[in-house]
Parts: sequence; structure tokens; C-alpha cells
Amino acid sequence: MHTDLVAALDIGGTKIAGALVDGHGGILVRAQRATPAQEDGDTVMRAVEEVLGELAASPLWGRAAALGIGSAGPVDASAGTVSPVNVPGWRGYPLVERARAAAGGLPVRLIGDGVAITAAEHWQGAARGHDNALCMVVSTGVGGGLVLGGRLHPGPTGNAGHIGHISVDLDGDPCPCGSRGCVERVASGPNIARRALAGGWRPGPDGDTSAAAVAAAARAGDPVAVASFERAARALAAGIAATATLVEIDIAVIGGGVGKAGDVLLAPLRKALTDYATLSFVRRLTVVPAQMGTDAGLVGAAAAALGTRANATAAEV
Amino acid sequence: MHTDLVAALDIGGTKIAGALVDGHGGILVRAQRATPAQEDGDTVMRAVEEVLGELAASPLWGRAAALGIGSAGPVDASAGTVSPVNVPGWRGYPLVERARAAAGGLPVRLIGDGVAITAAEHWQGAARGHDNALCMVVSTGVGGGLVLGGRLHPGPTGNAGHIGHISVDLDGDPCPCGSRGCVERVASGPNIARRALAGGWRPGPDGDTSAAAVAAAARAGDPVAVASFERAARALAAGIAATATLVEIDIAVIGGGVGKAGDVLLAPLRKALTDYATLSFVRRLTVVPAQMGTDAGLVGAAAAALGTRANATAAEV
Repeated sequence: MHTDLVAALDIGGTKIAGALVDGHGGILVRAQRATPAQEDGDTVMRAVEEVLGELAASPLWGRAAALGIGSAGPVDASAGTVSPVNVPGWRGYPLVERARAAAGGLPVRLIGDGVAITAAEHWQGAARGHDNALCMVVSTGVGGGLVLGGRLHPGPTGNAGHIGHISVDLDGDPCPCGSRGCVERVASGPNIARRALAGGWRPGPDGDTSAAAVAAAARAGDPVAVASFERAARALAAGIAATATLVEIDIAVIGGGVGKAGDVLLAPLRKALTDYATLSFVRRLTVVPAQMGTDAGLVGAAAAALGTRANATAAEV
Repeated sequence: MHTDLVAALDIGGTKIAGALVDGHGGILVRAQRATPAQEDGDTVMRAVEEVLGELAASPLWGRAAALGIGSAGPVDASAGTVSPVNVPGWRGYPLVERARAAAGGLPVRLIGDGVAITAAEHWQGAARGHDNALCMVVSTGVGGGLVLGGRLHPGPTGNAGHIGHISVDLDGDPCPCGSRGCVERVASGPNIARRALAGGWRPGPDGDTSAAAVAAAARAGDPVAVASFERAARALAAGIAATATLVEIDIAVIGGGVGKAGDVLLAPLRKALTDYATLSFVRRLTVVPAQMGTDAGLVGAAAAALGTRANATAAEV
């Protein structure tokens, strides 16, 4: 039988999504379970097995050549294990071996969720055609991934592009990761909201203290809300500029819930970038919003399964 | 004739060194001129041409297959031009075209000097056998380069690995590059000395206010000198940790004059690294001194000329 499809899993702290995906990124079959995130490791794995079982029941399953997995991190692609922060039952959990068994022996490729998003944006989204790109998710956390020299750069363990946990403020606030002044500690949604509240911003009658509510206040001109987004923008700009200075990227793609704030974030971010991206070879750097939707993780896991060159190889299959 | 050699140029603000190099990194013929750094561009180029002319007069010249150039930056490998900060007569200067003509039409490969040092350390030095490495020069400035996935990663313009100008302190002191809180602004030799003097350290009877003198004072227990090196170490650690978190390196090699301070720098650097390199996939990172001497730039330029995989390809030639 012609194996022109791949199976894909997108494993997060809330849901486990699965799909059969064709060589153009089209999703032909879907399955999904809630992540029993607080249960023991084998219970979480059973939810993964149910998703794979549902996919395997499809008449298209026989056409799947490989299984790509994008998982909440940290992952260890070299060991085939995962230790997602929000799934305490999985610590060094042998996901690749278990998933391979549940998928009838298909070859498995594991990458972190930030890397998966990046593979999707490079294949089908805002980073298409860019040989050197940083793709980010700015949301409850800040994650990312890299395309270098036209290829996805997952790194040996599948975690490369972890921009949320580089320090841009070496004397800054302690971060839950153990470091200080991390990009995530300044720019994530909860930290944007925390800073606005500390500065005196108050939510409306609905009591909504999300970063989206702060963004709405900023759009309405609230100076404290504006300042909190500007601070997040500076941290993101310093991190993006550092990445460009280190590996020469020419585009940064911003997705995730906070990314959806639009110009409230992007305008000060582009301005701050001129302060930090100063060397001649990084000045052309552009920042654009992400194009992929909620299927980005699945499509990116599929791209990884299709080959290391996310766009070219996938298109060739 | 068998072309088993390459020609190499190491172009800095003080000297222009040239060599014919064999496939094992052995230097067979040398030539050198002082850099007329304050003269006009064509005068500087004449010094390069004299070096190449001297090499071309060797009976071994006919065995040279290519010319590798490591130049003070910024360089633009895609345009074939260089704009070294310390050579004002060269701004967007078409070095590749001119050097190719002076070298009798040999193919030319241009990289930045930090990238060249990295190629040398990967081929023959402290990063040998490491597929993912950051090599740094900590001296009057702070430069660097990357090996990723077993290959030199110069980036499209030949400047990747520019760790000296990533910001680790987004509200920090202005850097001459236009940004703030750059690694170089905290950790270079002149900044180590400046900070020690500002803190009350005074030089000995010889009036030596170099970073080497501050290092000697630190070894003798002067607390201000110790503190200045510790601050430099924190900035370097934050920058190295950021690099590892972004691209997954497992070794950082430190060379240059300040690197020679030894444990005065390396001990607090290794300690600070545990504060900033916190994620599971960067915790194994080690920091070691450089092994290559003053020929590193020439050997690295030769490695670049021999192929993109600095060690493997060079060894195969």
C-alpha cells in the first residue's frame, strides 16, 4: 500500500489531539481526549493509546508511514522520553517506545511543542519561504523554535528555540525555572496581567484579569496597561534580537494568545527591536503574527514525521 | 597538480596574516603585514595583496585549491564585503572579489573572525568531537561562533555566534553598538578594568590597568578585582546559557586574553552557569579554555576553505 500519510500527536497539559495528515498538511482523520494531567503516568498514556486506537480504526491508517509527536516539554528526543511540566505523572516517561508499540511499530519522531509550531509555520504559515526563522508562542508561557539554513533545528534533545527561558535581565525577578529575568517571566500573559495589577490597573465589572483584558484596556488608552505591554515587548525584543545576533534569523513569527493582542504588543515590540537589534546583519529582521491556527501543533508534528526539512521534504512526499 | 592545500587569511585591525595550510591544519608557508588600519581602503587592500603575493611566490602555491578568509567584522559573506569596526577605510568593501583577483581566481570563502576561531577549535582544539559548541574570544571585545549538528554555523552573512552583542541586561549600560547591557559591555577586558577602577581598585607601581592586572589582583585576593571578574562571569554565564537554551550546545570554549585569566574567570563562570542554565537539556553544559594559539584565525579560515564541515571535511581532503 502507498504510504503517503503520517500520523501526528499534539500532547499538551489540557488535551491530546491526534490526526492522520497528508503530504500537503491536510487533516483527514481526527481524534482527541482530555489530558488526565493529574493522574499517574500510565493513565495519561492510556489516553494517548485511545487517540492512536481511534486513528488506527480508520481505513486510511494503513497509508501512514510514520508518527510525529509534538509534546509539551521538556522532551528528550535522544532518549525518547518526556517530562512535561504540567503532567507530573510523566517524568522521563518513555513516550516514544510506548507510542511506537501503540502505533503498530511505526517509526516515531518526537519534538517539543514549540518546535512543532515552528515546523507548521515554516511549512504552511508565516515563516514559509524563510530559511532562517524564529517562531514563538506567547501565551501562559513563552515557547519557540528555530528554522536554520532552511531546516527545522530541534537540537539533539528536541528543545531548541526555548526563548522563554533565556535571561534578558540577569539581575531580574526569579523565574520558576530557577533562573532570573527570563523572557517568559516578563512577557507571558499572566506576567503582563500581574504587572498591570501591581501598577494599579483594575479589571472591569466582569472581573476579567487576563492578559486579553489588559490588552483591551491598553487599546482604550489605559497607561498602566500600555506600560505592561511595553515592558513585555522590550523583553521579547531583547530575546528576539539575541536570537538573531546568535544564529542570523530574518523573521520572527509571534503566535499564542498574547500574540493575538495585535498592535498593542507588536507596535512597541517592533520599536524596541530597533533598540536591541543593532548590528548590520540583524537590522533587516521583521516581526509578523503567526498564521497557523489551533492545528499548528498537529501539522507541525506531521511535518517533523515527514522529514527534517519541514517544508521541502513534506512537499516532496 | 594535486590540490591538497588551501590558502588562508586572518585579517584583523593590527595585522594581516596569511598561510598555505595542509589538510591536517599544518602551516607550510607564512606571510604577514601590519594592517594600515587608518589608511584608505585600497591601501589596506594592497597589504592584503602583498601577503597573497608572498604566498603565491611559494612553489607550493599551485597546490592551493581555495582561499579562506577570516576577517574582523561585521562581514557580509552573502555580498562578499567587509566593514571591520577598526578599519574605517573598509565599509562594504568588496574584499572577496579583490582577494579572488589577487589569488589568481581561486574560490574564496569569507567568514567572521569569531566564526574562524570556532572552526579552528572544532577542527583541532577544545571543541573537537563536539557536534554542538559555542566558541568565544573574550578580549578587547567579546566574539564567538557556533558549531551546530556537527557543522560550522556561520549564518547567511558569516556573523553568527556574535555573543558579545546580545543583551543580558535590558536596562543596562549603553553599548557602543547601540544596544544596552550587551555581554561585551560587561565582560570585555576594558570593561573588567573600568569596573575595578570605578570600585576603587588601583594598579601597582607599573601603572598597568589592564584586565590582566585586575586578574593578578583578584588572584591576590583583592575583593574589588574579584567582584569585577564575578560580574563579567555572570554576564558570560547568562549569554552562554541563553545560547544553550536557544540552540542546544553542550560545550562552551573560552579563549582570548581575558580567557587566559583562568580560574579567576572560569570558577565564578561555572558557578554562575548553574544559576542561568537551569532547564534539563542545558544542565550538562561544560565550559573549558580554548586550546588553539595565535594561529587559530588562520587555521579556522583554512578549515572554512576546506569545507563547511570544519573537522570532518577538512580531515577528508
